[in-house]
Amino acid sequence: MKSDVVIIGGSAAGLMAALTLKKRAPEKTVTIIRNVINTPIPCGIPYIYGIMGQVNKNLIPDQGFIDQGIEILQREVEDIDRADKAVVFSDGDRISYDKLIISTGSKPFVPPLAGIDKTNVFTVKKDPVYLQKVYTALTPARNVVVIGGGFIGVEMAEQIALMGQKAGIEKKVTVLEMMPRCLMLACEEEFCLEIEEELKKVGVMVKTNCQAEELIGNGGIKGVKLANGEIITADAVVIGIGAQANIDLAIKCGLEADPRNGIKVDKYMQTDDADIYAAGDCASKFSCITGKPSGIRLASVAASEGMIAASNLCKGRSRVTMGALGAFSTKVGNRSVAAAGMTSRSATEEGIEFVVGEVTTPNRHPGHLPGSVSDMKIKLLFRRDNDQVIGGHVSGGDAASDMVNIIATAIQANLTAEQLAVMQYATHPLMTASPLSYHVMLAAENAAVKLR
Amino acid sequence: MKSDVVIIGGSAAGLMAALTLKKRAPEKTVTIIRNVINTPIPCGIPYIYGIMGQVNKNLIPDQGFIDQGIEILQREVEDIDRADKAVVFSDGDRISYDKLIISTGSKPFVPPLAGIDKTNVFTVKKDPVYLQKVYTALTPARNVVVIGGGFIGVEMAEQIALMGQKAGIEKKVTVLEMMPRCLMLACEEEFCLEIEEELKKVGVMVKTNCQAEELIGNGGIKGVKLANGEIITADAVVIGIGAQANIDLAIKCGLEADPRNGIKVDKYMQTDDADIYAAGDCASKFSCITGKPSGIRLASVAASEGMIAASNLCKGRSRVTMGALGAFSTKVGNRSVAAAGMTSRSATEEGIEFVVGEVTTPNRHPGHLPGSVSDMKIKLLFRRDNDQVIGGHVSGGDAASDMVNIIATAIQANLTAEQLAVMQYATHPLMTASPLSYHVMLAAENAAVKLR
Repeated sequence: MKSDVVIIGGSAAGLMAALTLKKRAPEKTVTIIRNVINTPIPCGIPYIYGIMGQVNKNLIPDQGFIDQGIEILQREVEDIDRADKAVVFSDGDRISYDKLIISTGSKPFVPPLAGIDKTNVFTVKKDPVYLQKVYTALTPARNVVVIGGGFIGVEMAEQIALMGQKAGIEKKVTVLEMMPRCLMLACEEEFCLEIEEELKKVGVMVKTNCQAEELIGNGGIKGVKLANGEIITADAVVIGIGAQANIDLAIKCGLEADPRNGIKVDKYMQTDDADIYAAGDCASKFSCITGKPSGIRLASVAASEGMIAASNLCKGRSRVTMGALGAFSTKVGNRSVAAAGMTSRSATEEGIEFVVGEVTTPNRHPGHLPGSVSDMKIKLLFRRDNDQVIGGHVSGGDAASDMVNIIATAIQANLTAEQLAVMQYATHPLMTASPLSYHVMLAAENAAVKLR
Repeated sequence: MKSDVVIIGGSAAGLMAALTLKKRAPEKTVTIIRNVINTPIPCGIPYIYGIMGQVNKNLIPDQGFIDQGIEILQREVEDIDRADKAVVFSDGDRISYDKLIISTGSKPFVPPLAGIDKTNVFTVKKDPVYLQKVYTALTPARNVVVIGGGFIGVEMAEQIALMGQKAGIEKKVTVLEMMPRCLMLACEEEFCLEIEEELKKVGVMVKTNCQAEELIGNGGIKGVKLANGEIITADAVVIGIGAQANIDLAIKCGLEADPRNGIKVDKYMQTDDADIYAAGDCASKFSCITGKPSGIRLASVAASEGMIAASNLCKGRSRVTMGALGAFSTKVGNRSVAAAGMTSRSATEEGIEFVVGEVTTPNRHPGHLPGSVSDMKIKLLFRRDNDQVIGGHVSGGDAASDMVNIIATAIQANLTAEQLAVMQYATHPLMTASPLSYHVMLAAENAAVKLR
C-alpha cells in the first residue's frame, strides 16, 4: 500500500489535517489510520449519557471524508519504519508514505489508586465500543462517583444525573475534586462556584478539596474511600482527571518525545524527521501567552495544529502556530460558562501583574425581553505592563461561547484594553446587552480606567 | 446655572459620555440636557409595538445616571453662546460650561412625498410621547404600510404584525423598499432574502424595487400610491428611511457642519471650538475601513464616540476613534442576521478586490442537539491586496450577534484570513459548531486557500 500522506489517528487533528490537505492539495492521496471503528465527537462524549441517550448519536460520520477522497482504515499500527518511510501494521502489512502526520492523541490519565482495576471503573476513552460499555454499566447504576471536577468530569456528572431522570431511576452522582473548586484550572473562582451551584440544582453532590484514596469492593466496585476516611458508595466510577500525550509510537521509531510534553515539534508542527509532522494532543505545545511549554490539550488546539501541519506539508513551511490557547466553554443546568486564556490564579503563578475589568448586565436590552439572563457576567484580565488582554471569562446565556471567542481572538492578536474599549460592536435588543453596556466593551473600559 | 461639563442630547452618545466622565473624572459636575421626557432605548423602539406592548417598557431608567451624580434636565436649547461658554435655553435661562458635548443625534429623514402631512403618517422619533401617538394610531389600524426596508423598517413591520396577532386584530402590513432587497445596504443579498422570507412567514408583504410616490386620502391617510400607479390601502404609514445629522444648533453657533456629514470633528471628537466636542449621530465620521467620510449612524458608534469625547475632554487628547464600523444585527421570525463592515456590493463600489470565505454548518455538534440551527451561515470578505478582513455576515441562531463581533473586532484590528484561520476558538456541543468547523475559523480558511 502507498499513500502520499498517511495520518495516524482519526480524531480532531487527524481529520482536520485530512480535510485541509484535500482543500490545499487535492491531487494528493490521503489515508487516515485509526484503531477505533468510528470517531466519536470528542467534546460530545458526556452528552451520550444524558441528552443523546445513544453512543451512535455522537459519531463523526465518515461519509463526508470519504466523499472528499480520503481513505479511512481501521488498523493497529505497530511501528513506523522511518528509513523506508512506511507505517507497519500489527499484522505485518505496511503502507508507504511520502509525508506522515502523527495525531495519535492522548490517553486518559489513570491515577495510581488501590483498586483501580475493579469492574465498573472507567476512564473516558474516545472509542465507541468502550463508551458503550460505560453506557451499559451506568444504566442500572444507582450510585455513581465521578473522580475529577474538570470539564469532562462536571459534564459527565450532570449528564449521568440526567440519564437517571430520563429513565426514572434516581442516580446519586458525586463529583470528587482535589482542588478547592471544580473547573479551577480554566475558570475564575466565582464562575466555578456558579457551575457547582448548577450541579447541585440538578442533584449532583460536589465534594471539593477531596482526594480519592482507594476504590473498594470485592472485584466489583462498592465505593470510593477518601483520604479523610469517608467512604462514598458507588456502583460505578468514572475517572476524568486529564490526559497524557500518546507518544508510544513516536518513541518507538526514535522521534524526540516525552510523556509530559508530547512529541517534539517546531512551530510548523514538524518533528525532528522532516517527513513527519505531529499535531493535536500528542504534539508538544507552547502557550500563546507566555511562550512556555503548555499542557493544554483541546480539540480546538488540535484542529488548528492539524490544519497547520497539513498546510506546511503540502506547500512548504509557511504556516506557524500562534501557540496553544485554552479556550473553553460548558453549560451545566441553565448556566453557560466560557473562558479564554489565563485566570487570576494562573497569571499570579506566572508572576504577571494584571488589572481586571468586569461587568454584570443583562444579555438583552431592555432586560425583560425573552431569553434574557439578567446577570450575564464578563471578567477580563489585562497585563499591567503592556495593557494586553490575557484572559476572558463569561457566564450567562448560550452566546457565552461566541462572546468569549471575541476575547480569544483579542488575546491571539495582542489587543489592549484601550482597543477593546473603543471598538464598535453589533448589539440588538433580542440578542445582546445594550450598546452602552455591551459586555466586552464595558469590561475593557472598566479596566482601561485603571490602567491609565 | 453652571456645570463643568454640559451635554446636549440624552441618547447613546450623551449618556455614554456622562457615564465615562463619572468614571474618569468623578469630581466634575455633569449635566445632560434633553428635550424629551425620557430616553427610549433606541434599538428597542420597534419592539414597543409587538413584544413589549408598551412605550414605557422601552425606556432607559434615569436612576442609574442620577445615582452617579449626573444631572438630567428636560429643556429646549435655543443657542450656544460660545464667547460666554454657556448654553441658552428657550426661556432665556443659561447654563455655563467649562466643556460642552453636543450629542443632538439625528432627525428621521422625511421624504418629499405628496401627502406627507396627512394624519397617521409617522416617522420613528426617539421621543416617548411621539412613540405613544404612533402606538395609539397603530392599535386599531388594519392596513399598515412601512416605507423603507432597512433595519428599522423591517423590525417595525414584523412587530406591527405581531401587535395585531397579540390583539386578535389581523393587520395587513406591507414593507416598501426602493432597492432590490430589504437590508441591502448592510447585508449580503442571500441574507437579505432570508429576512424577507421570515417577514413573509409572519404575514408581512414585502415589495422591493418599489418607490412610494404619493400618500393619498382626505386629511387622513387612505393609501400609498406607488410609482407604477398601484395603490396600497393604508390606515397608517410608518416611514423609516434613514436619518440626518441634527446640526441646527451647531450651525447656529457657528461651528463647521453640513447636513450630509454632520458637525465636523477630528479623530478626538473635538470640534473647531476647543471647548466643544461632538459625538454620535450628529458628528462627522469616517469609515474605519476606507478612511472616507461615512454616513453610518448607529448607537454602537455613538456609544464609542461618547466615550472617546468624554475621555479626551477630561484628560487631554489621548483617545482616538478608529472610525465608524457598520456592525448590525437583527432577528426576524426565527432567523437572526448580523453584519459587520462591507458587503460584496459596497466593496465592489469602492473598487476593492476581495475574496470570499463561506461556511454553512449547524451551530451545535452534533447537529441534532437542542437549539440547533442546521444551516447557520457565515460569509467573510477579505481584501485581495493585503488579506485583511473587511466584512462579515452571519445568519442563524441568536449568537449571530456575538459571532459577528468576532469579525467586528478582527476588522478593527486589521486581522488577516491566515490569522483568523489558525486561531483557536472555544467550542461546545450545546453552544457552537464543532472545533473542525467553527464558523469563523473555517470560513477564514476557505478564503485563505484562495488568497495563497
